[in-house]
Amino acid sequence: MNQSVVIAPIGESLKAFLEGTAYSKVFVVADKQTKKYCYPHIKALLPKHPLVVVEAGEENKNLASCEQIWEAMTEAELDRHALVINIGGGVVGDMGGFCAAVYKRGIDFVQIPTTLLSQVDASVGGKLGIDFHGFKNHLGAFNIPNSVLIDPLFLQTLPERELRSGFAEIVKHCLIADAERWGKIRFVDFERQNWPELIAHSVAIKKKVVEQDPTEKGLRKILNFGHTLGHAVETHFLGKAPSKKLFHGEAIAVGMIMESYLSFSKKMIDRELLTQIEEFIFATYGKVAIAEEDIAPILALTRQDKKNKGKEIRFSLLNGPGSCAFDVVVTTSEMRKAIDYYMA
Amino acid sequence: MNQSVVIAPIGESLKAFLEGTAYSKVFVVADKQTKKYCYPHIKALLPKHPLVVVEAGEENKNLASCEQIWEAMTEAELDRHALVINIGGGVVGDMGGFCAAVYKRGIDFVQIPTTLLSQVDASVGGKLGIDFHGFKNHLGAFNIPNSVLIDPLFLQTLPERELRSGFAEIVKHCLIADAERWGKIRFVDFERQNWPELIAHSVAIKKKVVEQDPTEKGLRKILNFGHTLGHAVETHFLGKAPSKKLFHGEAIAVGMIMESYLSFSKKMIDRELLTQIEEFIFATYGKVAIAEEDIAPILALTRQDKKNKGKEIRFSLLNGPGSCAFDVVVTTSEMRKAIDYYMA
Repeated sequence: MNQSVVIAPIGESLKAFLEGTAYSKVFVVADKQTKKYCYPHIKALLPKHPLVVVEAGEENKNLASCEQIWEAMTEAELDRHALVINIGGGVVGDMGGFCAAVYKRGIDFVQIPTTLLSQVDASVGGKLGIDFHGFKNHLGAFNIPNSVLIDPLFLQTLPERELRSGFAEIVKHCLIADAERWGKIRFVDFERQNWPELIAHSVAIKKKVVEQDPTEKGLRKILNFGHTLGHAVETHFLGKAPSKKLFHGEAIAVGMIMESYLSFSKKMIDRELLTQIEEFIFATYGKVAIAEEDIAPILALTRQDKKNKGKEIRFSLLNGPGSCAFDVVVTTSEMRKAIDYYMA
Repeated sequence: MNQSVVIAPIGESLKAFLEGTAYSKVFVVADKQTKKYCYPHIKALLPKHPLVVVEAGEENKNLASCEQIWEAMTEAELDRHALVINIGGGVVGDMGGFCAAVYKRGIDFVQIPTTLLSQVDASVGGKLGIDFHGFKNHLGAFNIPNSVLIDPLFLQTLPERELRSGFAEIVKHCLIADAERWGKIRFVDFERQNWPELIAHSVAIKKKVVEQDPTEKGLRKILNFGHTLGHAVETHFLGKAPSKKLFHGEAIAVGMIMESYLSFSKKMIDRELLTQIEEFIFATYGKVAIAEEDIAPILALTRQDKKNKGKEIRFSLLNGPGSCAFDVVVTTSEMRKAIDYYMA
């Protein structure tokens, strides 16, 4: 797997990609936000094309939205030689990519990630999918996009909360793979981080890991640090009042503290690193209010994690700064303690 | 791609497959027919397992049935290390395989094809999928099953019409790849064909083609002989009165006559071969009543064929006995003439 990721102004990268291709049709997927803020910068770069606009937000990353996309593809009479271009964050990329991967058993697609989160995470590695009955990315496929075109300029269209959410994956990449960089970013205020540089850094780390283990048989699982409990927390609050809903990165930030505690309790990292991580994350993200009655459902949700085997809940845990182990079995009572630690 | 296909009594082949595996759970998909007639021969060979039973028939090869299967998989808390076993004809195999290929981005699955059609066709090649809005196999994936276990004894559970339908794909395999065998089977009455021998023959041909071109970029398209117009005819009558509904092989038989006529009209085969084919097919399948008003919708349906490029309708056509070309562009008026020829 040699994935093409280009970090450049979209006018250049998209032009370069399309040059010399002979697609029968180009088809664009966007959501209501990216249609308004990003699509206008892209529209004129493309030949005449149909556009389908889905509702924004994780709660719409489901089979019903896929049906909407597949219907639009069918109406446009897309054949196997067509190209799908997904303009948006992780939801549009994961879902539009999945729709392309499944339509007529798979047609070409290009991702134009427009959020920090999707630029540093979803864009690389070919994981596509949708949620199903409340379980995150429960249905999906592994398919490498024909190209990923990242333009940091799109970040200017983002609300600050969205940008902060994406930053969590950058933090994760430093923690699991680059101790030196972790030692730098933790002393820089969120507002002063250098996004173009950090995007390139995160993409390089993720590419390296994914190329060694495309289908997540082993090593790739380290990218899931913070995600076992993080996903459970995210899914749990997705079903609650809209005001309680967490952005993906916010939930992963919670998960990273909990799972750093697990790493510490298993003597894989020292207290100093644990303290560094929690101080930095609390300072950047604040603390999410988790009530006693949230704990049981959060624990139950970890049973659906894709890394599990049989009844074992398996984590990817830090075993030093810039280093991560995978397939670490964790019991329910250990998880319970990690949640308590976060709450305390 | 090296696909495992075993032709043997199911008691032997299933036991041999499971030996030494360590699946976290086995999950079985069947339809109402195969649950009654085939599953009883298999149940005791498996460890304790959940079973989901879908409605039989092509009209249920859709997203709603997939949702039913995915719900059952989720309720059973299947993890990535689980095995799905699909017991049934092409509908269960294509759909259960697709559900496994997409669940948690893909888990292992084994096909136990129980109809002649699925034993000689759907079982090999990794094409999975479902129909969508009336278009056949419009959504799907390419995924190789971990094994295909073919037991010719299951054919005894089939109604004769079902067996005859499956025979059409055997005829197709002879026509596109084995002139000598075509010269033999055309002199044998349907009732006296040697099924175990013909299954092995068809599987060998299909395997050889598919291994050279797994994702149908070129050569594999020859397996679609008879299927461009055949699929259109099948899809068209799917939407009509139940009494008009055709079995897949019956529609392909119609398609093979029409497309042999196209091959003849393009001077790719001589009149003698065309006559041989139509005489044999009419003798085996009779003639389907196609009315004047059916023609326009049938022609329109060919526009959705997966082999097309842009506005071009592309066929796989015979260019001699036991030989087939692909990507042959055919115009609407040529298709119209082929339908007229069949009707005359």
